Amino acid sequence: MKLNLALCQMAVTDSKEKNREKASAMIREASGKGARMVVLPEMWNCPYSNDFFPSFAEEEGGDTYRFLSQEARTNGIWLIGGSIPEREGEKIFNTSFSFNPQGELIGRHRKVHLFDIDIAGGIRFMESETLTAGDEVTLLETDFGKVGVAICFDVRFPELFRRMTLDGARLIVLPGAFNMTTGPAHWELTMRTRALDNQVYVAACSPARDTGGPYIAFGNSLVANPWGEICGKTDAGESIVYASLDNNSIESLREQLPLLKARRPEIY
Amino acid sequence: MKLNLALCQMAVTDSKEKNREKASAMIREASGKGARMVVLPEMWNCPYSNDFFPSFAEEEGGDTYRFLSQEARTNGIWLIGGSIPEREGEKIFNTSFSFNPQGELIGRHRKVHLFDIDIAGGIRFMESETLTAGDEVTLLETDFGKVGVAICFDVRFPELFRRMTLDGARLIVLPGAFNMTTGPAHWELTMRTRALDNQVYVAACSPARDTGGPYIAFGNSLVANPWGEICGKTDAGESIVYASLDNNSIESLREQLPLLKARRPEIY
Repeated sequence: MKLNLALCQMAVTDSKEKNREKASAMIREASGKGARMVVLPEMWNCPYSNDFFPSFAEEEGGDTYRFLSQEARTNGIWLIGGSIPEREGEKIFNTSFSFNPQGELIGRHRKVHLFDIDIAGGIRFMESETLTAGDEVTLLETDFGKVGVAICFDVRFPELFRRMTLDGARLIVLPGAFNMTTGPAHWELTMRTRALDNQVYVAACSPARDTGGPYIAFGNSLVANPWGEICGKTDAGESIVYASLDNNSIESLREQLPLLKARRPEIY
Repeated sequence: MKLNLALCQMAVTDSKEKNREKASAMIREASGKGARMVVLPEMWNCPYSNDFFPSFAEEEGGDTYRFLSQEARTNGIWLIGGSIPEREGEKIFNTSFSFNPQGELIGRHRKVHLFDIDIAGGIRFMESETLTAGDEVTLLETDFGKVGVAICFDVRFPELFRRMTLDGARLIVLPGAFNMTTGPAHWELTMRTRALDNQVYVAACSPARDTGGPYIAFGNSLVANPWGEICGKTDAGESIVYASLDNNSIESLREQLPLLKARRPEIY
């Protein structure tokens, strides 16, 4: 079983309508080029800023949710809808909705590790000022097999990636917006090692870098294969990353280099 | 609290006596240059081969053990004694003995993940043909704080490194002999990410590369800092890697980028 995957590294503006138009155009382009699964970035319909999350937030089933469902159905693709600010009562979550080619919801991931960092001489950001963390590990059933979804800072935690792998993930998709401090230092390193350690594919989709925006995303969307190599990537600008994933290569590698079988959970 | 650390990437021969002479000379050189902790490679007194492990194996307290104790005391250093084949009854372990500057044993690590791999077009090695796995996580008490010890293939398992970190490790030392298949692909990547994820130092000490030996080690001994950067390294040949470690930098980084506090163990 192979899968043609596309990551839409789109430039995000402060117009929700323009963001939807851009997402629609990139999804159509990707599916036109043969992608069967398409991924959007973290916070693709809203600037990545605590100043914007509350006013851009929508409830599950809202305009952006219905937009994603329709895009999946119209293009006949599996759509991992990046993430958007989601409102439920008084709370706002950083949430990823995913849809099958019939436009049906197949999973919702609410970012479980909020991004609260304050690096001397580098970036400060406190998601917890506006957002609430989710409480669930998210796996989607697709025709490529199980697909894990995590969002950005979630990737910092090897335990989460191990959990998804042990629960059957073959591919883990990460809408994520690293920044110009952590991006150059950690983005590629972390994605590659999560793929290698777990012998899964990891696909990380960032917004394009906008040096004039409130938050400068690193970009560099990429796909890492189960051997820890990059098998698709871009740089900072708006573009689509394509990669061909092979489910059989995972089994073959796990036979040759049996990392999962060799675990010793009784002693950790 | 700072620590001058040295990794002795020594060339290993099939003469135990010559290996001890070489180790002694490199330990003396390193301590003469100010190292307070010195590390030897995996299987530094024995060729890395199932053909040699049984005949080279010694019991705890044997000649090589006493040699290590004396080297630690004579040079007044903390000595992480790489690893050697250790016999106990019918069993042979891949074991690391460590000593304080008084020459007293401070810890014994028996490799807990045996190296059994068979990569198409690459390396095949089955440690389990001669060796038995250990069952314990190993932390040493030193004046730099707690130091974890793991051996080579043990590094493939993020759970073990997390366990040592949560138990207080500030530095994790890994005597290890990656090969020419996995070395170029995974050695640096894995060491850097273990350091980054856990915000600890990781020091990996390999034998020098000997293209005429039964097993061609990758070399490339290195130290990775808690930001995931390399702060000391060498290439393939016989040499000593020096690095200056700063315990305070760990605390500072963990404040700015609170990865350990942000874990959500209840959901994994």
